[in-house]
Amino acid sequence: MTSPTEGPGDIGAEWLRTAGPDSDVVMSSRVRLARNLAGFPFLPKASREDRRQILDIARRNVLDAALAKQVMWVDLADSPTLERQVLVERHLISRQHAKGDEPRAVAVSSPDERLAIMVNEEDHMRIQVMRSGLALSEAFDHIDSVDDSIESRLEYAFSPRFGFLTACPTNVGTGIRVSVMLHLPGLKLAGEIDKVRRAAKGMSLAVRGFYGEGSDAVGDIYQISNQTTLGRTERQVLDDFERQIIPKVIEYERHARRTLIQMRRTLVEDRTHRALGALRSARLLAADEALQLLSLVRLGLMLNLFSSDGPELADVSRLMLLTQPAHLQKAIGRTLDQAQRRIARADLVRAEIDRGRR
Amino acid sequence: MTSPTEGPGDIGAEWLRTAGPDSDVVMSSRVRLARNLAGFPFLPKASREDRRQILDIARRNVLDAALAKQVMWVDLADSPTLERQVLVERHLISRQHAKGDEPRAVAVSSPDERLAIMVNEEDHMRIQVMRSGLALSEAFDHIDSVDDSIESRLEYAFSPRFGFLTACPTNVGTGIRVSVMLHLPGLKLAGEIDKVRRAAKGMSLAVRGFYGEGSDAVGDIYQISNQTTLGRTERQVLDDFERQIIPKVIEYERHARRTLIQMRRTLVEDRTHRALGALRSARLLAADEALQLLSLVRLGLMLNLFSSDGPELADVSRLMLLTQPAHLQKAIGRTLDQAQRRIARADLVRAEIDRGRR
Repeated sequence: MTSPTEGPGDIGAEWLRTAGPDSDVVMSSRVRLARNLAGFPFLPKASREDRRQILDIARRNVLDAALAKQVMWVDLADSPTLERQVLVERHLISRQHAKGDEPRAVAVSSPDERLAIMVNEEDHMRIQVMRSGLALSEAFDHIDSVDDSIESRLEYAFSPRFGFLTACPTNVGTGIRVSVMLHLPGLKLAGEIDKVRRAAKGMSLAVRGFYGEGSDAVGDIYQISNQTTLGRTERQVLDDFERQIIPKVIEYERHARRTLIQMRRTLVEDRTHRALGALRSARLLAADEALQLLSLVRLGLMLNLFSSDGPELADVSRLMLLTQPAHLQKAIGRTLDQAQRRIARADLVRAEIDRGRR
Repeated sequence: MTSPTEGPGDIGAEWLRTAGPDSDVVMSSRVRLARNLAGFPFLPKASREDRRQILDIARRNVLDAALAKQVMWVDLADSPTLERQVLVERHLISRQHAKGDEPRAVAVSSPDERLAIMVNEEDHMRIQVMRSGLALSEAFDHIDSVDDSIESRLEYAFSPRFGFLTACPTNVGTGIRVSVMLHLPGLKLAGEIDKVRRAAKGMSLAVRGFYGEGSDAVGDIYQISNQTTLGRTERQVLDDFERQIIPKVIEYERHARRTLIQMRRTLVEDRTHRALGALRSARLLAADEALQLLSLVRLGLMLNLFSSDGPELADVSRLMLLTQPAHLQKAIGRTLDQAQRRIARADLVRAEIDRGRR
């Protein structure tokens, strides 16, 4: 698992491409399915030998499937910490999946990283498909074909009454979770982010920060996902999200941006230009601050506030990932403690932020 | 009183020239004498007619004295608020002297602004001489000759027992106050500014911020002055200051800067470069923040941290004055409310900070 993180030039990550529908607000769409193999206990009750067998079955069927050529298999128990952390930062495995020494793996489509299948995380398999922008239907079609292809080769734990069986009851049924990663700097600057939180809560949606559960919304990046899957079809869950909920949030954010530009243009110019100035001049930079500054610069680019002296969006997006601790250390080529990372991060940002302009 | 503030190019102010001994730490040295005319009540008891007569006598004798040619007379009761505020910002009159409608004036040597004589402030006359850097003896020689010249033309209120008589008992005796304006960003960054405050307190010295009594030490600029004048000669007061007290503070500051550069170089580089980045990119800038950022850039210049991409010291010093509210409005050419000033200040700084490099 080195190719997608080799150099700063090629980062692959689908969710940072800033392409696809509504990508001014929606960074990425994600669909994930929880699947378990029939004939094996759920993981909380599984022995180490069970896990090993599950891993073998998954590997054979995932790699032998039609998808074989583009998928690379990463045995996590054998991977160095830094490599596992890189996968977390790329949103290809969960934080939880990066920890421990149980037999577990992830299969990732390369180089696009749109598909990732975690094996032995909370369920035997967690299949995820990601797309830039608001493209849940497209993501669902993709994951559905992957799911079918795997299901044709092995037997899932399934109950005619409940649907797909999962380790955690909240996933029983379709086993689907859809989530959308949104960039909401306008609502944040306008002090209206609670509007989204309230609306989401009213619809049983979870609103989280950049790196999933418990993480703060650093960089004004929020994930909104559904909470329940039982009793509704995948398409119903998806339609709610793609046609009603997310378009409403997108409109909130666009309205906030328009209002800011009309009513408080100088304030937005000040914040975005200062953020760019800080990125170009800092000699010490923490990961969270970097992300927050890059977020403001991204907003400035979306609102055309920089005229000719701004950086390119691709450089800003790439740095959102490269300034994360593990990516930073990969880019530098050695492990660094926190104090060293702050220096290296600032140096990297200064070297890369205007790369596209030179 | 327009010539010294006409354009951003020529600001005259002696205390911002960054010249003279120890000007890496000492911005300016100031000596001031409190003098009253014999035969008139002190100002708290003086009638409007008394004040008018005092003003006439002072004007005639100050302007007729040998210094006549270089001195300009500003009748403050007739001056617009903005002009008076400009004089405060140039440290030529006190805040108190800028207020009210009593007959009062200031005589200022032009264009060097080294000499200023406030008439009808707290005493009938307050004579002040300022010099760049640590140059109290030189300032004293100058003020002494001015004092002699004035005294040869009129009679001061003087008691053989107490010395010069003044409205406030703390000034009785020599009537002298010496003060030094220090730039102490090193001690501030190192968190050691209390060291100076404690030492000063132990020696009955006052430590104040940039704009005298009650003002905070914005921009890491501190004024240290003596508190008592009774029972000691001018030379004793002066010698204490110039040979013992201030050299100690200068050494504290230089030690703090050296230690920062040796032990925490990246931190200082970060703060100074970020400050410069903020000045170059802000679209909204409050006066205090501008001064604080300029202070850090001044430190960066003193420590040679900017290599070739730094601004020139002269531009930084000039902006320390030009970003003050009244100077800003003079530079723009019209009165502005606070919100407008923040925009205009940011625009001015961006236009002027790299003036010398172009």
